[in-house]
Amino acid sequence: MAEKNLIIYNTLSRKKEIFEPLTAGYVGMYVCGPTVYGDAHLGHARPAITFDIIFRYLRFLDYKVRYVRNITDVGHLENDADEGEDKIAKKARLEQLEPMEVAQYYTKRYLDAMDALNVLRPSIQPTASGHIIEQIEIVQAILDSGYAYQSNGSVYFDVVKYQSDTNKYGVLSNRVIEDMVANTRELDGQQEKHNATDFALWKKASPEHIMRWASPWSIGFPGWHLECTAMSRKYLGEQFDIHGGGLDLLFPHHESEIAQSVCAFHCEPAKYWIHNNMITIDGKKMGKSLGNFITLQEIFSGSHALLQQAYSPMTIRFFILQAHYRSTLDFSNEALQAAERGLKKLFEAFKNLKHIKPSDKTTIDLDLMDKVVEAMNDDFNTPVVIAHLFEAVRQINLLLETTQTITADDLLHFTEDFTAILHSILGLTEEANDTSQQLVEGLVNLILDLRTQARTAKDWKTSDQLRDTLSELGITIKDGKDGATWSRD
Amino acid sequence: MAEKNLIIYNTLSRKKEIFEPLTAGYVGMYVCGPTVYGDAHLGHARPAITFDIIFRYLRFLDYKVRYVRNITDVGHLENDADEGEDKIAKKARLEQLEPMEVAQYYTKRYLDAMDALNVLRPSIQPTASGHIIEQIEIVQAILDSGYAYQSNGSVYFDVVKYQSDTNKYGVLSNRVIEDMVANTRELDGQQEKHNATDFALWKKASPEHIMRWASPWSIGFPGWHLECTAMSRKYLGEQFDIHGGGLDLLFPHHESEIAQSVCAFHCEPAKYWIHNNMITIDGKKMGKSLGNFITLQEIFSGSHALLQQAYSPMTIRFFILQAHYRSTLDFSNEALQAAERGLKKLFEAFKNLKHIKPSDKTTIDLDLMDKVVEAMNDDFNTPVVIAHLFEAVRQINLLLETTQTITADDLLHFTEDFTAILHSILGLTEEANDTSQQLVEGLVNLILDLRTQARTAKDWKTSDQLRDTLSELGITIKDGKDGATWSRD
Repeated sequence: MAEKNLIIYNTLSRKKEIFEPLTAGYVGMYVCGPTVYGDAHLGHARPAITFDIIFRYLRFLDYKVRYVRNITDVGHLENDADEGEDKIAKKARLEQLEPMEVAQYYTKRYLDAMDALNVLRPSIQPTASGHIIEQIEIVQAILDSGYAYQSNGSVYFDVVKYQSDTNKYGVLSNRVIEDMVANTRELDGQQEKHNATDFALWKKASPEHIMRWASPWSIGFPGWHLECTAMSRKYLGEQFDIHGGGLDLLFPHHESEIAQSVCAFHCEPAKYWIHNNMITIDGKKMGKSLGNFITLQEIFSGSHALLQQAYSPMTIRFFILQAHYRSTLDFSNEALQAAERGLKKLFEAFKNLKHIKPSDKTTIDLDLMDKVVEAMNDDFNTPVVIAHLFEAVRQINLLLETTQTITADDLLHFTEDFTAILHSILGLTEEANDTSQQLVEGLVNLILDLRTQARTAKDWKTSDQLRDTLSELGITIKDGKDGATWSRD
Repeated sequence: MAEKNLIIYNTLSRKKEIFEPLTAGYVGMYVCGPTVYGDAHLGHARPAITFDIIFRYLRFLDYKVRYVRNITDVGHLENDADEGEDKIAKKARLEQLEPMEVAQYYTKRYLDAMDALNVLRPSIQPTASGHIIEQIEIVQAILDSGYAYQSNGSVYFDVVKYQSDTNKYGVLSNRVIEDMVANTRELDGQQEKHNATDFALWKKASPEHIMRWASPWSIGFPGWHLECTAMSRKYLGEQFDIHGGGLDLLFPHHESEIAQSVCAFHCEPAKYWIHNNMITIDGKKMGKSLGNFITLQEIFSGSHALLQQAYSPMTIRFFILQAHYRSTLDFSNEALQAAERGLKKLFEAFKNLKHIKPSDKTTIDLDLMDKVVEAMNDDFNTPVVIAHLFEAVRQINLLLETTQTITADDLLHFTEDFTAILHSILGLTEEANDTSQQLVEGLVNLILDLRTQARTAKDWKTSDQLRDTLSELGITIKDGKDGATWSRD
C-alpha cells in the first residue's frame, strides 16, 4: 500500500497541510448534504463527487472512514398563511401537505441521481428532523455558556459578545465582523435580535410554519446552522477530522458551526476544512436563487433548452473530475461533449488492454500508479490523475501496434493499476444499461447484414428464417426501400 | 372507474365490512415495517407485498392514499457490558459501533429487496429514532391520564387499571387478561412493574445500551409499541382508516397501540385492522427466533441449502399472491417452481396479445376486468384474480389458433384490461435485466448457428468475419469438438 503522504488544502489555515487524523487509522468526515425540497441540479453533483473522491481515496489509503452527510429536511414549508392554525386543525390530516412526504420523495430522487453518478453512499445520512432533541441540547448548552439569549420564544447566538470575548468569528471565512453587519441579508426576526449579525439557534414557529416541535423556549424549529453541529457531534464526536462542503457554505454556515461548537463544547469541530468551488454557467454560479440551474434528471435525459443532447451520469462525473475541486468549472455543451469523447477514449483503451500481446521485454514506463498516488496526495488532484491516464492510453495504443512491448507479468500489473485507478480511485464505470443496449444493437445489426447478404443471393429461406427467429426474440424487422429497420418490443 | 364496493375483513370486528374511509376520497394507512438490524427474509416479503397490493388497489379505486410504513431503528444494540460507560467514553467515537450506520445499511438492503419485488415505496417511511420527542409527548399524556406509572426511571403502562376501567385490553386480539398474566414472556424489568402484563413506555438505559436520549424520567429509550402510536398520529392523525401488519404483531404490539391511543388521545387509532398470515416452512412460522428463515437476497441468488435454485423476485411476488393474504403459505421448492412456471405462462400470453389477428366478430367473454374487480373488492382476493387471468390466458390461446375471434376494438380493450391487471393491480412486471440477458443469448445463439452453417459449407471467410465482429462487440467464441461456446467480457 502507498505511503500516506497525503496533503490537504485546509481552508481554516489557508494553506496545504500534511493530513494527520486525530486517531491513527481512523477518519471522521462530515459533509453538508442536500436540502430535499426540490431536485438536485448540476451544482449539487460537484460536492457529492468531490467528497466521494476523498472518501474513496482515504479508503484506498486503508483508513477506516466514517463519512456522514446530512439531509436537510427541516424546511420552510408553510401552509397558506390565511388559514391560521384553527382552520388547519379543522381540515383532515390527510388533506394537508406533509413535509416528510415531500422530503422523502426528493431524498429518493437525490439518491437515485447519486447512484447513477456512482457516488458511494456515505456511512450515515442523518436527517435534521430526526435530531431535534440533540439540537435542543446544544441550544441549552450555548445558552448556559452565556453566548445566546432568548427573545420572544426564539433563541439567538450572540455573535458580537462571542467575537469580543474570543475574536474567533471569521476564523474560517476571514471576514471582518463590521463587513458582516453591513452585508447581512437575513430579514426575518431582525427586531428580535440584539445585533444584525446574530443568528437563530431556535425559532418560534409562526402559525403557518408546519414543521414544529416542543422545546423549553417555544413550539418551533432549530436554526439551520445547528443541525450540522448536532449530527457531526453525535456520529463523529465533538472533534473530528474533516468537515467539507461547497464554498458557498463557508459563510455564514460553517463559520457559525465553529462558533456553536466553541461555545457548546469548548473546541473547534474539525481539524481540516475542505471546500469545493462552484459550477458556473456563463461565469455565474449555478444555483436555485439565480434560476440558472439544470437538474441532474434533465441532464441525464437531455430535456432542457440549454442542452444540445443528453449527457450520461459518467460523462458528468468525468467532466467534474477534469477540474481540480478548488477551481470553478464552467458548464457548456462543448465541455461536456469533450468529456464524453475523452471518457470514451479511456474506456476503449481499457477494453483494449486484453488485446495486447505480451512480449519478452517491457519498453514502456510502469510507474502509472506512483504518479497517480503522487497527484492524489497533492490535495486530490484529479485533473493530473486523468492526464496520467491519457498518457497510459497513448502507451496502450503503442503496445497494440507493437511499437512498444510489455511482458506478461508487467501487463498484468499495468492492467491491475489501470483498473484500480479507473474504478476504485476515480469511480468511473461503464454504464451497464448502455453496454447491454449497445451489444443488442451490434448483434441485431450483424444479423441484418447477414440477412441482406442472403436476400442479395436470393436465399429467401434464410432471410425468412432470420426474420422469424428475431421476431420470436421480440425484434420486429421492417423492410423498406432503403434497407431493413428494426424495433424492439 | 369501478364502483367502490370494497369489502375488508376487519380483525377488530372479526368480520367482513364495507370499507368507508373517515374522509371521503382519502385513505390513511399505517403498516408496521421492518426492524433494520439484519436482512429481510421471505417472511418479511409477505406483509410488504400484501399491503402493496392494498395500496395499489386503493389507488386504482381513485382514493388519495397516504401510506406510512415505519422503520424500527431503535434497537437493542449494546456495547460489551464489561466496558461500562467510563471505558466507552475513553475510546474514540469512531472506533465504536454506530447503530445508525448499521440501521442505514440494512434499510438500504431492505429497500433494494422491496424494489426488486416491485413493492411501491410508501408515501412516508419514518424512523423510530427520528421521532423521540413525539414519543416522549405521548408517554407524558398517558402519565397524565393516570394509566401509567414511573418506576426507577422507567415508565410502564398500567394494563390492569386500564382493563378494569375500560374492559378494552383484548379488544383486538380477543385475549383474556388472566391468560396473559400466565403467559407473559417479558423477563426484563419485571421487578419494576406493578403487574406482569404491564408494558414499558419508556426504559431507563442500562450502561451498555448505546441508543439513548434525555427525557423527563431518565436517559433512556422508548418502548417498542410507542413508535407506531407516535408516527401514525403524526402523519395520519389520531384516528385513521387502516392499520396493517403481520398476524404475529396482533398481540401484544397492536393491542398495546390501541391502549396507548385510548389513554393519550381518547380514541382508538384505526377503523380497520388488517393482518396478513404467516409464511411457514414445514408447517412452522418462518422467523428469526426459530432460525428457519431464508433471506430474500439468498432466495434471489439461490445461495441457501434449502433452495434447489435461485428464484427471481417476480416469482416470489407471484408465489405470495397465489395465496389469499389471510391464509398461511408454506414454503417449498415445488411451490416456487410452480409459481415460476405459472408466471412464465402469464407473460407469454401477455406478449402473444399483439400477435392476435382481429376479426369482425367477438366470440370470447370480455368481462375480465369486472371479474377481477369483484375478486379484489372481496377482501383483496388475489388467488381468484390470478384464476381469472389464467382463464384469460386460455382465451388468448384460442384466439391465437383462431378457434375464437375478437374485433380490433375489443382486442384493444381486452389488452388494456389485461395490462392494467398484471401491471397496476398485481404489480407483476418482467425483470428488465432478465429480458436483456435472454435477448443477448438468443441473438448470439442465432449468429453461432449461422456460423456453424457457414463452417459446414466450408465458407471460412464468413465464419471468421462473424467471429471477429462478435469479438468487437465483446463476445468471445471458443470452438470445441462439441461445437462453439461463447462468453461475454
